[in-house]
Amino acid sequence: MCEANAYIRSGQQEELILENVDRIIPVGDGLLLEDIFGHRKHIKARIQELSLVDHKIYLEKLED
Amino acid sequence: MCEANAYIRSGQQEELILENVDRIIPVGDGLLLEDIFGHRKHIKARIQELSLVDHKIYLEKLED
Repeated sequence: MCEANAYIRSGQQEELILENVDRIIPVGDGLLLEDIFGHRKHIKARIQELSLVDHKIYLEKLED
Repeated sequence: MCEANAYIRSGQQEELILENVDRIIPVGDGLLLEDIFGHRKHIKARIQELSLVDHKIYLEKLED
């Protein structure tokens, strides 16, 4: 399976926010992440980098 | 390997623009796509949907 893990990156820190992400859809001012089990998470962030072979999605949090 | 194919979607049409994409990085007003061989393509587009288990990246072209 080719799901990836989503991390919020700020500076040198990486915070894992959702594992096994299958789908990402930009919605409004954020992103809708859906994992392979159908669990969804909405987060105010934008994509900073995708590294699919490494199964990593890096996001940058947007301020309120 | 978990690379994906990138498509420009407009209406019902899907146009394949790069296969075996490993990395996507937003740059300026577009996206930098890099395939597993290190070939890069810059495109004025934004991400419309990622479907990683299906190995598909859907992009929406931005007008000049």
